Amino acid sequence: MSKKIALAYSGGLDTSIIIPWLKEHHDAEVHAVCGDVGQGEEELAGLVEKALATGAASCRVVDVRREFVEDYLWPMVRALSVYEGRYLLGTSIARPLLAKAQVDYAREVGATALAHGCTGKGNDQVRFELAFQALAPDLDVIAPWRTWDIKSREDALDYADSRGIKVTASRTKIYSRDRNLWHVSHEGGVLEDPAAAPPTDVWIMSVDPADAPDTAEELTLSFEGGVPVRLDGATFTPEDLVLELNRRGARHGVGRVDIVENRLVGMKSRGLYETPGGTIVYEAARALRALTLERDTARLCERLALDFADLIYTGRWFAPAREALAAFFEKATETVCGRVRVRLFKGQATAIGAASENSLYSEGLATFGASAAFDHADSAGFVKLYGLPNQVAAAVRRRRVDSVDSVLERP
Amino acid sequence: MSKKIALAYSGGLDTSIIIPWLKEHHDAEVHAVCGDVGQGEEELAGLVEKALATGAASCRVVDVRREFVEDYLWPMVRALSVYEGRYLLGTSIARPLLAKAQVDYAREVGATALAHGCTGKGNDQVRFELAFQALAPDLDVIAPWRTWDIKSREDALDYADSRGIKVTASRTKIYSRDRNLWHVSHEGGVLEDPAAAPPTDVWIMSVDPADAPDTAEELTLSFEGGVPVRLDGATFTPEDLVLELNRRGARHGVGRVDIVENRLVGMKSRGLYETPGGTIVYEAARALRALTLERDTARLCERLALDFADLIYTGRWFAPAREALAAFFEKATETVCGRVRVRLFKGQATAIGAASENSLYSEGLATFGASAAFDHADSAGFVKLYGLPNQVAAAVRRRRVDSVDSVLERP
Amino acid sequence: MSKKIALAYSGGLDTSIIIPWLKEHHDAEVHAVCGDVGQGEEELAGLVEKALATGAASCRVVDVRREFVEDYLWPMVRALSVYEGRYLLGTSIARPLLAKAQVDYAREVGATALAHGCTGKGNDQVRFELAFQALAPDLDVIAPWRTWDIKSREDALDYADSRGIKVTASRTKIYSRDRNLWHVSHEGGVLEDPAAAPPTDVWIMSVDPADAPDTAEELTLSFEGGVPVRLDGATFTPEDLVLELNRRGARHGVGRVDIVENRLVGMKSRGLYETPGGTIVYEAARALRALTLERDTARLCERLALDFADLIYTGRWFAPAREALAAFFEKATETVCGRVRVRLFKGQATAIGAASENSLYSEGLATFGASAAFDHADSAGFVKLYGLPNQVAAAVRRRRVDSVDSVLERP
Amino acid sequence: MSKKIALAYSGGLDTSIIIPWLKEHHDAEVHAVCGDVGQGEEELAGLVEKALATGAASCRVVDVRREFVEDYLWPMVRALSVYEGRYLLGTSIARPLLAKAQVDYAREVGATALAHGCTGKGNDQVRFELAFQALAPDLDVIAPWRTWDIKSREDALDYADSRGIKVTASRTKIYSRDRNLWHVSHEGGVLEDPAAAPPTDVWIMSVDPADAPDTAEELTLSFEGGVPVRLDGATFTPEDLVLELNRRGARHGVGRVDIVENRLVGMKSRGLYETPGGTIVYEAARALRALTLERDTARLCERLALDFADLIYTGRWFAPAREALAAFFEKATETVCGRVRVRLFKGQATAIGAASENSLYSEGLATFGASAAFDHADSAGFVKLYGLPNQVAAAVRRRRVDSVDSVLERP
Repeated sequence: MSKKIALAYSGGLDTSIIIPWLKEHHDAEVHAVCGDVGQGEEELAGLVEKALATGAASCRVVDVRREFVEDYLWPMVRALSVYEGRYLLGTSIARPLLAKAQVDYAREVGATALAHGCTGKGNDQVRFELAFQALAPDLDVIAPWRTWDIKSREDALDYADSRGIKVTASRTKIYSRDRNLWHVSHEGGVLEDPAAAPPTDVWIMSVDPADAPDTAEELTLSFEGGVPVRLDGATFTPEDLVLELNRRGARHGVGRVDIVENRLVGMKSRGLYETPGGTIVYEAARALRALTLERDTARLCERLALDFADLIYTGRWFAPAREALAAFFEKATETVCGRVRVRLFKGQATAIGAASENSLYSEGLATFGASAAFDHADSAGFVKLYGLPNQVAAAVRRRRVDSVDSVLERP
Repeated sequence: MSKKIALAYSGGLDTSIIIPWLKEHHDAEVHAVCGDVGQGEEELAGLVEKALATGAASCRVVDVRREFVEDYLWPMVRALSVYEGRYLLGTSIARPLLAKAQVDYAREVGATALAHGCTGKGNDQVRFELAFQALAPDLDVIAPWRTWDIKSREDALDYADSRGIKVTASRTKIYSRDRNLWHVSHEGGVLEDPAAAPPTDVWIMSVDPADAPDTAEELTLSFEGGVPVRLDGATFTPEDLVLELNRRGARHGVGRVDIVENRLVGMKSRGLYETPGGTIVYEAARALRALTLERDTARLCERLALDFADLIYTGRWFAPAREALAAFFEKATETVCGRVRVRLFKGQATAIGAASENSLYSEGLATFGASAAFDHADSAGFVKLYGLPNQVAAAVRRRRVDSVDSVLERP
Repeated sequence: MSKKIALAYSGGLDTSIIIPWLKEHHDAEVHAVCGDVGQGEEELAGLVEKALATGAASCRVVDVRREFVEDYLWPMVRALSVYEGRYLLGTSIARPLLAKAQVDYAREVGATALAHGCTGKGNDQVRFELAFQALAPDLDVIAPWRTWDIKSREDALDYADSRGIKVTASRTKIYSRDRNLWHVSHEGGVLEDPAAAPPTDVWIMSVDPADAPDTAEELTLSFEGGVPVRLDGATFTPEDLVLELNRRGARHGVGRVDIVENRLVGMKSRGLYETPGGTIVYEAARALRALTLERDTARLCERLALDFADLIYTGRWFAPAREALAAFFEKATETVCGRVRVRLFKGQATAIGAASENSLYSEGLATFGASAAFDHADSAGFVKLYGLPNQVAAAVRRRRVDSVDSVLERP
Repeated sequence: MSKKIALAYSGGLDTSIIIPWLKEHHDAEVHAVCGDVGQGEEELAGLVEKALATGAASCRVVDVRREFVEDYLWPMVRALSVYEGRYLLGTSIARPLLAKAQVDYAREVGATALAHGCTGKGNDQVRFELAFQALAPDLDVIAPWRTWDIKSREDALDYADSRGIKVTASRTKIYSRDRNLWHVSHEGGVLEDPAAAPPTDVWIMSVDPADAPDTAEELTLSFEGGVPVRLDGATFTPEDLVLELNRRGARHGVGRVDIVENRLVGMKSRGLYETPGGTIVYEAARALRALTLERDTARLCERLALDFADLIYTGRWFAPAREALAAFFEKATETVCGRVRVRLFKGQATAIGAASENSLYSEGLATFGASAAFDHADSAGFVKLYGLPNQVAAAVRRRRVDSVDSVLERP
């Protein structure tokens, strides 16, 4: 019986040519597997036929959309993690799940190796392989793009031609894209000049803010335990909720991001992202947390969101540190319940009002006027003690007086 | 010779009534002082006359706008500090300088006490008094709003009437506002229901995004050492640069923020802020730093910006910790030089391109194709070692194999 | 029916005089309650009688030792929290539990107020009152030491005399002490000169290292889920385990600490602590975690231990942030199981060997020689990519070459 | 003219055999260079002769001891950085300077490549190469141990024999050691079983605590700007100060550390360290900082010391992030001046008293009794506001009352 390899397959040029190459160089059956994380019909239609036509021994498309939202996106939303101030981690968060689906299929068909189509310069090779290391340390890993002679898009197209593989991709494909329920990303081509504004034709998911409706649209998003559960009062499946938010956000040009980011493998790269629904979710969650998290928890969340973002971006999803932080965020956000009103207009999602049964906002405390709950005189003591450490430091520094005690012992 | 008190004076109702009150209760001359941090003509015109008419022994308006920008705003911009994800700290950053101007005037006139008009529920009492503690630990502090019987706006107006003080403020003033070069803030009134969208009439500095021009405007902001120095190639004084950016941003509705924030004295409050120029500066600085800071420095800056924001928000400006962090940011941003193109449109400022002589972006490294500078094969070793700690942890956790060594010793 | 007050009672001078004072000034029954957290027979013997003799309407000693270890000490051990590098938080960690026992008793007797004997300069007032705020926001708080005229030990003794209260305390008591299962603390008296070495007579729990046995003693401590469960193979109740470790550590002078610390209320104070058993636990846990936590989790634990220590020290035990961090540590340490050999000698506890079924240490990986699990060549790629961000930064800074690409594109 | 290679040379087996190998495989002159960081006479005596005898074209020993202390150790001391709770970073901190000396010599002789003798499993390869990347991005790097066929100590000895190189090393050398002014490290051999206590013969710098004098020794260390400047009142050169502290500490068995640490390249390893003088310096600095740093700065220093330790351990010394943090620590510790009394006894260095002209300790503030500088009543206000956020959270969580306001509005 011949060796079997499970290949993470997308149907695109990059993974299509791997099928014949693996068969030629590893004398193995290639079992293609594709996790459906919401890439959309365009990518998934005819995928199985294409794989088999290209020489795959089998091909499975696995619907993991529900799992993607509940077990990957929602824990990320509880952390409100953003990479380098802007990127909502749409590609990063999907990779571990795709790898998991691949490992499951490998076990099912009895494969002894896992192959992927990521290049040696990108983040995704790390994300896939760290997931492999965690979930299947006993399986071999094959990364053809790091080892073979195919070094360019041209080479790849030539190889496809030589093996009779039909690819819809033209020779002049400009951008490298990745799409799922949460977002679509764009890299490469003219984007590689960070001084140049992105051309208008690069965006594919959302309307240009300049072309968005002149009238704002509003929606109400309801949360429980830090994650969205209802839209305008209606219950959706988690994946449909994200899709519907994408639709609403996209028609107002919400969620476009253009950044130069630090890749895990060391260089800077320019990435464009469209995350319309995710942007709405984050804005609403932010507003609701402002109402329901007390200050210390809010501070810890701000700091740890940075760490959680790094763990996701770098592919350390199935790692003890990631899991321990997730336990923190789950506990921290258990009171983040309530409703947020969000306005969509010309590229922006703006929370304009929030309410919660767990609201920690108290008008009586906040307002200028008298309140039985707050004695203005309390503040005098507070200010004095709050400032004491720095006051002593200043007194010592100034040497205006003989000793700390004397300067502080004014009546 | 009678006792002298230096009063932080704004000309508004809150500080105007303090003048007669201090004279009555402390048997003292009241020397009013107002730091000009760009409140604008509306607030400053006739201020000296008003103070004297109200009974002040003297009144000085001190122009500290240049100092405000260079020694307060720019260090904050080097840190890119934002409070609780949104607030650009416009009021917080001005208070220490106002206190410093007040202390200087107190020394000049020989005052033995410092008075301010902040209430016992707000942040500003802390900011003023922490600055007093640091700069003048030998002077007494008088905070009438924490101690007197005047407990409401009504009370204050009655008191003003009874002392013959003319205030332009009506009985129905709705919002509490603070304005300077960097921003204007709004609190109180109907804003105190966080579930309600802010009324359109509350904003005074910027146009409603819905009414902003249908055509975007672009500008180029140049930086040196992390702070802006030129606009569209032209040199401005620091204060004029901020003013001009305010003008540009305001006409596109840029820089409006609506948040529920955690006040230093413990309660949550709702604040609205307009920081048009500052928002442009932050967006441009973010884009330029993405290009010029290497990853480790960028990570430290992200984390420490949170601490720097807390220090500013809580009034610890003249504190050793704040100064030590400022030394960090000054060093960290010394290579943040270059130009950023920013687009202003319907409430948003978006960096659309950046260039720097210190750019760390390398197209050769980032691009998909072959590059002499980067061997794809290097990545194999990188991924293996990068993932090693988690791989070992996963192997031990799974107990699929007899020992860590054996699982790792695949060929 | 008269008003009832529940008083946190220790039997010492400070709380004894509160009983008559409360009756006189609040016209109330005083119900004394004392949580037994392991203060020891010396403090607890005759406590009820003493309280009643002093005028208390009732007195209850509640044994919370098991709860103290399992629900307070162990979560702290999971975090390995240390305050300011040295203090094992023995007093801080007990206060919330004492407050909880007091609130429970207040509910039982129907008290409407909670009283404590902490002074206005210390940390404990905050710890008690924050616990009260969390557990019984509806009850009033009475803190006589902040309000009455008794300002010194002399005053207190005079007051006790005048009310016929017999106190064993002499007029010349030098140190203020607090003792429980975990530690004993010493403050005050000659310790208040930080330049002076602590006198040898201040220590009461442990032998002077100079007088400790000349022969080392060794023990084996076993852990599960980050906390100790067995000593030398034998199972103990949690409280007996701590007591036995105290005995062993104390006879070797282990766990003495002498620090100047930053009090929560702003000033510095000098504190001496004896935590013999706790010091052994921490040293053993540290060694076992080095073996069983992978790097990322270890790093997060190091950082968050600082935050957890601050939350404990400042009395924020019953706070959402503390609970969320506890969830992190519980998850993070679930694999911290195994045995540690600890040597006790002349004041030091030193882990000299550790073993765990979850050990992540692999001799095959660590050793210099050849190993199938590790290809030295992998390191070349790792080093190159690991250093890439700083290499690019250095190249740009040096301007030795025309562009980043060219400097990196060496063969 | 032939190619020239600058080799980091130690005189040991590992680097000695590189000389003939480089000549054979690279057809190059080998110019050996050794930075004297205080390895001691034993290592340095006859080094030049040995290198030349082995075939080196030249050999230079460069005395960088002063630079080592002032520009490397002291900045680390300002940060009080410790790796993973125990390791004082003695090897890590020396590597960048050795690499710098090597680059300087390479420039002088006109070498085009840099060679080192570090293996592919250790941290030092990264430290050397990251320094090379920063200081000489234009020079090639040769790391024979990662590429040649010599895979064991046996192989190396055979190769040495075959090339006529005399090595004093026996076939049974057990430990791998690294020594400099700051410390000596031990790895390998029987230490590779973390469950086994280290044998007594491994330690070479310090006496066994069990054999240390039965009488304690005390010393006084004076600091300026966070670093030690005088010992018992006498001025030393920086390097002599460290040497003298080593002598004192070593005879009392101070500064021994035994840890399992996380190596940069991913695996855990066991290391033993002797840092007698450094341990005294750290203990004294800790005590003095407790007296002179106000709380906020102390907190930042605690957290950032972890980051600084990571940067040093991982070889990122010549990196912008390291330099920016150094600027922070330099500013933060500028007031750390004064004297600390340290007691050495049976393996421990213990600060027993500290004094500083910048001391922030105030007996008047700390003491229990009455003080004009501190009104106990201030604390009531402080506690109330300090606890307010958690109080509101608790009230909302308990739902004991109808609304937040009502629960807080008790009289």
